[in-house]
Amino acid sequence: MSNQITAAFYRGDHRFSVETIDAAPPAKGEVAVRIAYCGICGTDMHVFHGNMDARIGFERVIGHEMSGTIDAVGAGVEGFAKGQKVVVRPLDHCGDCPACDAGHQHICHNLKFLGLDTHGAFQEIWTVPAHTIHTLPDDMRLDHAALIEPVAVACHDVRLSGLAKGEDAVIIGGGPIGVLVAAVARAAGGNVIISEVNENRLAIAAKMGFDTVNPTKDDLVETIQKRTGNKGADVVFEVSGSQPGVDAMTAVAAVRARIVMVAIHAQKPQIDMFQFFWRELELKGARVYEPQDYDKAIQLVAGGEIDAETIITDVAPLADIQKAFEALDASPTALKSLIKVGA
Amino acid sequence: MSNQITAAFYRGDHRFSVETIDAAPPAKGEVAVRIAYCGICGTDMHVFHGNMDARIGFERVIGHEMSGTIDAVGAGVEGFAKGQKVVVRPLDHCGDCPACDAGHQHICHNLKFLGLDTHGAFQEIWTVPAHTIHTLPDDMRLDHAALIEPVAVACHDVRLSGLAKGEDAVIIGGGPIGVLVAAVARAAGGNVIISEVNENRLAIAAKMGFDTVNPTKDDLVETIQKRTGNKGADVVFEVSGSQPGVDAMTAVAAVRARIVMVAIHAQKPQIDMFQFFWRELELKGARVYEPQDYDKAIQLVAGGEIDAETIITDVAPLADIQKAFEALDASPTALKSLIKVGA
Ligand SMILES: [Zn+2]
Ligand SMILES: [Zn+2]
Repeated sequence: MSNQITAAFYRGDHRFSVETIDAAPPAKGEVAVRIAYCGICGTDMHVFHGNMDARIGFERVIGHEMSGTIDAVGAGVEGFAKGQKVVVRPLDHCGDCPACDAGHQHICHNLKFLGLDTHGAFQEIWTVPAHTIHTLPDDMRLDHAALIEPVAVACHDVRLSGLAKGEDAVIIGGGPIGVLVAAVARAAGGNVIISEVNENRLAIAAKMGFDTVNPTKDDLVETIQKRTGNKGADVVFEVSGSQPGVDAMTAVAAVRARIVMVAIHAQKPQIDMFQFFWRELELKGARVYEPQDYDKAIQLVAGGEIDAETIITDVAPLADIQKAFEALDASPTALKSLIKVGA
Repeated sequence: MSNQITAAFYRGDHRFSVETIDAAPPAKGEVAVRIAYCGICGTDMHVFHGNMDARIGFERVIGHEMSGTIDAVGAGVEGFAKGQKVVVRPLDHCGDCPACDAGHQHICHNLKFLGLDTHGAFQEIWTVPAHTIHTLPDDMRLDHAALIEPVAVACHDVRLSGLAKGEDAVIIGGGPIGVLVAAVARAAGGNVIISEVNENRLAIAAKMGFDTVNPTKDDLVETIQKRTGNKGADVVFEVSGSQPGVDAMTAVAAVRARIVMVAIHAQKPQIDMFQFFWRELELKGARVYEPQDYDKAIQLVAGGEIDAETIITDVAPLADIQKAFEALDASPTALKSLIKVGA
């Protein structure tokens, strides 16, 4: 008996093809998830632009910012009921490298990212290792739940920063990732301000209730010094991926401030090491998430502490994935586009 | 009744003048220390070269890597006996800035460094705030005790790194500071290797019993990977102050490694932020020391865990300070030159 589903394949050069395929039943240790929604990530956009063809190929279903329900479980998998709402933490580690040995499975030397290195969630049924499943509250909205993956990234960033209630936090870069980091930092009790140069993004951040500064109009360092009684920011998140952002991250930092590198700098930026010495600054790289970050993200999204209605700017059916990617690519103001995969 | 002493003044342009002056008695809250030995620090050499004239002026007695004995105490100072062996932690904080408020007095916004911002220890009697004094064991050699200040810097670096027994540590740069960091890291139970390009320094490091690698001859990353079972270094100390050193610090690092920035980079080096993201690296700036670092340094030097006989390469009387600076400046192999200040 065949189980036919619809899946969107990346075929190279800004093209998806939506096709009908046979879904294989879950193998031993696997779970089949019926996908409800799947958001378009910045990484998916990189794939769309052809920047990751060597890694992805042209036979790949991508997508990982998903929500769904349990459809079936493979041999040896227990504790899940068909129809139960879930999300997938899309990381599969090797279990046998120095990083795994040290308990850092999320930065495994041989990490597979599900939906990039394997097929992903832009298909009606997604089969994944059971250890990647997080269950959701029964009353959770599945469109909102598609935000859990990017919120978990922000939860990881904020957790690594050690941000404590009442501390001053500066987010450098107020795009889709920056506003999520800001929201999680605010939920942790931080006094948050977002530095962003784009007026559209500043307006969205303000709509979400954040203090903002445009460093091309106002002096950022002076603003932060005034706001903090000449102390500087206890925590800085560099989300801009730009040299001015990297310059600002050290300039606004208090003594012993923690700076979290959220952006991926493909080039090597110049960094003010003198300030690291002078103020004993700390810089931490942050990559994806660990299980507790997913738990936290589920709690925050379910609890309404993430303004999902503002963040989700578009929803399109799987049949229209091509148009959805093109529209997001062209939009200066869109934050998060979801693909509605389920019927 | 006057108390005449000999003092060496920096007069600008590579010149010291040794003069007889009246020593003022210690004021309220101060202690007068009879100086035994005072080492020549890299910072003192910067002064000698004229690089710090704007800060130092031409009426300054410098020197801070000292040992001595209590000579007299001012009003309100208790708990010291004349003749007691001591060292001075040469930092005076303001007590009224955000850094002091947060308990980080050693990186006070208005920090005075004694022996640079005030007169220092290249004189027979040095008067300092009582809170800067650390007492020494009665049987400690005062020439060895002049190493306590630079060893305390290394203790601060190693403490901030969180180096645990059995962890792999790479020291990039095997000069006078690098070998002290290596010695303290070894005393903390680290598996230490020194990367250094200068053959003279490599020979000294080997004499002190350290594993070494010359990255211009052998592949540093390959050496560290082989040594650590493909894990990489848990802790890296960047002491070279060079762009190749900064490149190496990320290249040799294990996942979640801690990198301590010991060198002062006056220029902004280019840093591989991608590796910070990819392996969740951590970078910490380290500046001077805190009281517990002095306690640790006293313990290590007194206990013979620092090879003082190898590190102290020259001792000259105060009258010969000019020649001592000139000789150290010209020597490719000298590690630490001491000035014998006391009779
Ligand atoms: Zn692994
Ligand atoms: Zn202060």
